[in-house]
Amino acid sequence: MTPRREMILSTLAAAVGPALGDDRDDAASRAKAHAEKTVRDHAHWMGDETIAMLLYPRFTALDLFGPQHMFGSLMGAKVLLVAETADPVPSHSGVKVVPTTTFADCPEKLSILFVPGGSDGTLEAAESPAVRRFVRSRGEEAEWVTSVCTGSIILGAARLLDGYKATSHWATRPQLALFGARPVDERVVIDRNRVTGAGVTSGIDFGLTLVQKLRGTECAQVAQLLSEYDPRPPLVAGSEAKAPKEVVTMTREMFRDYNARIERIAKTTR
Amino acid sequence: MTPRREMILSTLAAAVGPALGDDRDDAASRAKAHAEKTVRDHAHWMGDETIAMLLYPRFTALDLFGPQHMFGSLMGAKVLLVAETADPVPSHSGVKVVPTTTFADCPEKLSILFVPGGSDGTLEAAESPAVRRFVRSRGEEAEWVTSVCTGSIILGAARLLDGYKATSHWATRPQLALFGARPVDERVVIDRNRVTGAGVTSGIDFGLTLVQKLRGTECAQVAQLLSEYDPRPPLVAGSEAKAPKEVVTMTREMFRDYNARIERIAKTTR
Repeated sequence: MTPRREMILSTLAAAVGPALGDDRDDAASRAKAHAEKTVRDHAHWMGDETIAMLLYPRFTALDLFGPQHMFGSLMGAKVLLVAETADPVPSHSGVKVVPTTTFADCPEKLSILFVPGGSDGTLEAAESPAVRRFVRSRGEEAEWVTSVCTGSIILGAARLLDGYKATSHWATRPQLALFGARPVDERVVIDRNRVTGAGVTSGIDFGLTLVQKLRGTECAQVAQLLSEYDPRPPLVAGSEAKAPKEVVTMTREMFRDYNARIERIAKTTR
Repeated sequence: MTPRREMILSTLAAAVGPALGDDRDDAASRAKAHAEKTVRDHAHWMGDETIAMLLYPRFTALDLFGPQHMFGSLMGAKVLLVAETADPVPSHSGVKVVPTTTFADCPEKLSILFVPGGSDGTLEAAESPAVRRFVRSRGEEAEWVTSVCTGSIILGAARLLDGYKATSHWATRPQLALFGARPVDERVVIDRNRVTGAGVTSGIDFGLTLVQKLRGTECAQVAQLLSEYDPRPPLVAGSEAKAPKEVVTMTREMFRDYNARIERIAKTTR
């Protein structure tokens, strides 16, 4: 038995273990037989990806934790939280997250490079030569180059979206064209090995899409059911088309300076 | 002008600030007038809640970061991440989050007490006398007592759901009855001042629901549009009713030992 099969076996055996109160010996042998069969049926659920998720000051926590939750269903994958230094990184709202790896220690060859968005911190990251250098070097080698929300602005500034279809937060989506990308109004956009999600909450759709690509439909269905992803927004205002006009106008106003700054970044990085 | 109005003014003035290239003086006075009007129109968007979100080892990160993102729209509210000690708290998947406050330093009177769910760590928290004591003491005084996913098992073990309608992760929902609650199959359940969400991703619906309750519909619409919450799951498997039967069976199996342990917790805490 390969180590990989051992791991699947123990993971699944735990899930299908004998119920309390069963006769122990009998239950144990039934559980073993059940687990063996489950292993045979689900060998493709196991992988060995190395996934690096970028942390930078004032990233949007939910941009990261939606996909990070779904990546948890990629059995066998290693998920790294990578920052410039080992210090805890404050999110936009001030939550401090401890990185697992620094830029210097991050493996060069990644299965997935993931970049979350955020507000002004995202633009500072896009302006930082160290961040751009890291994102570009890992992005050029990674099997999948991905982002959620305005994380795509960082990918653009690292010149990883030139000639690719991509998306971003709805209010900054047109700005992707400044980096040579072709903005697409979809929740998750896949163009060759680039996978970009729209604003914040799209990270959940984005994450499930990648789980399905990497482990197949049944594994993604389990991930969806485990996270009870049967959304029922209490209001209808989640897109430019659906929200009341005044709400769109007010929200768009908030991005005026932000988008002007993206324009300046695009000029200096192309 | 009260300090509260000052805060709204500066927050909104930033959002509606003059566009680049405008004539500075003229633009500044227009922006000031605009911001003043916006303040008058949106004074109810400002509050002063104290919100405590519980951290414990092996909580599910997304259970917390969905609601935490939406709470970010509650202008003027203070959001605390409260743990037993000041040490970083590892989530179920190993992400370490730094608390802002300890049990000992947490204010006694909270606007919202929030408890996230998780896997075995949640049951350890429910078994911990220190956690139960903290949750019960703050829950008895809080204006809103809330949870997402199996966080409701902790509320139940702290005897805060006796006689209340409530929900939990679908696979543990019936177990709420063991704590005297009335399990309800809805995504967000409100009974008097108890607000409980279903599994993991329901935290986003839950958070928006609370924003609407505390700040009104327009503010919640802005929060929804800012987070582009227009979900489009790539698969249809987010509930027991919608997922394929084999997927439901396999996923339910994973909760067999978990639910047996909840039963034992209920016996020792009632």
